[in-house]
Amino acid sequence: MSDTATKKKSGGLAGIVAGDSSICVCGVGDHSLTYRGYAIEDLTEHATFEEVAWLLLRGEAPSRGELEAYRLKLRTLRRLPESLKRVLELIPHDSSMMDVMRTGTSFLGNLEPETCKKDHFDVADHTIALLGPMLLYWNLYHLGKSIPEAALNEPSLAGFFLHALHGKSPDPAVRRALDVSLMSYAEHEFNASTFTARTIASTLADYYSAVTGAIGALSGPLHGGANEKALELIQRFNTPEDAKAGIAKMLKDKDLIMGFGHRVYATGDPRSPIMHEWSKKLAELVDNTEMLPVAEAIAKTMWDEKKLFPNADFYSATAYHFMGIPTPMFTPLFVMSRITGWSAHIFEQRANNKLIRPISRYTGPEPRTWAPLEQA
Amino acid sequence: MSDTATKKKSGGLAGIVAGDSSICVCGVGDHSLTYRGYAIEDLTEHATFEEVAWLLLRGEAPSRGELEAYRLKLRTLRRLPESLKRVLELIPHDSSMMDVMRTGTSFLGNLEPETCKKDHFDVADHTIALLGPMLLYWNLYHLGKSIPEAALNEPSLAGFFLHALHGKSPDPAVRRALDVSLMSYAEHEFNASTFTARTIASTLADYYSAVTGAIGALSGPLHGGANEKALELIQRFNTPEDAKAGIAKMLKDKDLIMGFGHRVYATGDPRSPIMHEWSKKLAELVDNTEMLPVAEAIAKTMWDEKKLFPNADFYSATAYHFMGIPTPMFTPLFVMSRITGWSAHIFEQRANNKLIRPISRYTGPEPRTWAPLEQA
Repeated sequence: MSDTATKKKSGGLAGIVAGDSSICVCGVGDHSLTYRGYAIEDLTEHATFEEVAWLLLRGEAPSRGELEAYRLKLRTLRRLPESLKRVLELIPHDSSMMDVMRTGTSFLGNLEPETCKKDHFDVADHTIALLGPMLLYWNLYHLGKSIPEAALNEPSLAGFFLHALHGKSPDPAVRRALDVSLMSYAEHEFNASTFTARTIASTLADYYSAVTGAIGALSGPLHGGANEKALELIQRFNTPEDAKAGIAKMLKDKDLIMGFGHRVYATGDPRSPIMHEWSKKLAELVDNTEMLPVAEAIAKTMWDEKKLFPNADFYSATAYHFMGIPTPMFTPLFVMSRITGWSAHIFEQRANNKLIRPISRYTGPEPRTWAPLEQA
Repeated sequence: MSDTATKKKSGGLAGIVAGDSSICVCGVGDHSLTYRGYAIEDLTEHATFEEVAWLLLRGEAPSRGELEAYRLKLRTLRRLPESLKRVLELIPHDSSMMDVMRTGTSFLGNLEPETCKKDHFDVADHTIALLGPMLLYWNLYHLGKSIPEAALNEPSLAGFFLHALHGKSPDPAVRRALDVSLMSYAEHEFNASTFTARTIASTLADYYSAVTGAIGALSGPLHGGANEKALELIQRFNTPEDAKAGIAKMLKDKDLIMGFGHRVYATGDPRSPIMHEWSKKLAELVDNTEMLPVAEAIAKTMWDEKKLFPNADFYSATAYHFMGIPTPMFTPLFVMSRITGWSAHIFEQRANNKLIRPISRYTGPEPRTWAPLEQA
């Protein structure tokens, strides 16, 4: 496959096999997205985010007892160390939320360094548990508020996040929708942030270095930032007719339109129909009749004009909006989910490690002689 | 070249061309290491670190006026923002120094976010200027000390670092040796940390995300951490005879020996003889007659037994030791230098960007059906 792909595509390592992995298949065969062999449609119908997290990290589904213990573990680990709170307080109120998460994770690495004695699952689970509290502590602190005690005791990440954000226990349908979204974002093979995590891990750097780098990569608008850009696009238009005309004009002007197409999928992103269905349910629940028809008109126009399908980010954006989640928190939610995939890849890289170090094609000046000015 | 290399090597993208670059050539042709066309031997003989930093970032050597203005700029930018000082104070005294730099750099990104309005050279130059002060502020703070005002006014990074570390203006030969080492570490094509920086930058993430990820990658013992491991190895032996016998035993036991060989060099690392010469000068200056003969005996044994040559890290380790630099600061010095190469690569990646996103070869379970436990 790589040979053909290499000839067809160029640059950005598109189609180049960078290593083996037993975690995820995407864009190949009948099931176009599987985690450890389970189709995303099956998982988002029958599982929960905590089960998917366990599955990705440990390779097999948890038993009922293991799942209960795991939920309790993650819940217990939600309390932020005091010095991490002080650092979060020092981060300006108008910082990018992704920078807050990157910095909080890096600082956590100073407090709880990974050592060969510590179980690597413990290191990952503590980070998985703390990412949400980190973001919400910082966010609420600058609003003069704090995370409610009851939120810390919610049994799931989805419940915790919505409870802390809105100050009350969430509607079960909203909580389930967020849970589904967290599952659908959890893993996606050698995407740019996961590949970053693996490259860092390949130097035998610590877990926090790999995750900090991955958060940075995910912050880019060509990667995790796309869901925020998708909502901004949808919000530009008031009616389906506006949207159709506006998108046609953007296409004519060759403007960048986020939330469509994907390098690894030829005909469609399997996560998109899942989040589309949930967007419909949520729109009804919150009685929003305007936004989804606009989004669907954009999707139809993109298909009619360019044969481009909506990717995972497009209807995740509408779903998050209906959940009352502020747009700058969309990519941070992606982090809270994808860290499970990153962790699985870091462990997999370590288990059969080889330094990731490609080469470049030199296009610079010929050898030349330095003309000395002075010495220091 | 990549075709042949691909067939011969496997894994870790060894020999795979991941993109074009006009910055550096290593391991090819007559000049085995060049920056922007200038041989490393020429630069370390006739230039200074600040000139090399300018050269890497801007593509051409500075004029005398540009160099003077650049030195002044970097010196002026050395003063740490107050909230960054508070964060550094919160990092435990026994943290890894690389984690301190990773966290400080990530936090800096919150204080001075990169915007399209800001000149990208300004963003890079400020970070280049602050890495040394960050580390030394943290280090001295936990010793109840602070960076001397006179150190902040030193005209070069080498002068600043040694002055702040030792509390007095350095011997000119020691300062020049550190300057040479900073030049020799400044750039090395698509090494793991630089490739990390480019992968992060390829998502259009910000400069700080790319540099934070690169620091994480460099912290790994298979990459930047090797110079510290090399000194630890040398310090195990008291005499050349001990070293010869000890290395022979380590080779027999298949122990990992750091500081030898390099994926991109077939016959030798051009940086090694440069730092070997400086190690000789410094050994004489500080009247250390024991360590270098031990190091040379290790190098001879590695060559005789395995035909492996010392790489840049080996004699950098002895040179740093003779300069009175504590071992845990070796890799942080590598960061202070290599950030110039990283910055050049980030800018180059942005100038002709394509998302870096390879694929994997799937080795996991066949499709299977999820057995539901419960829903959240």
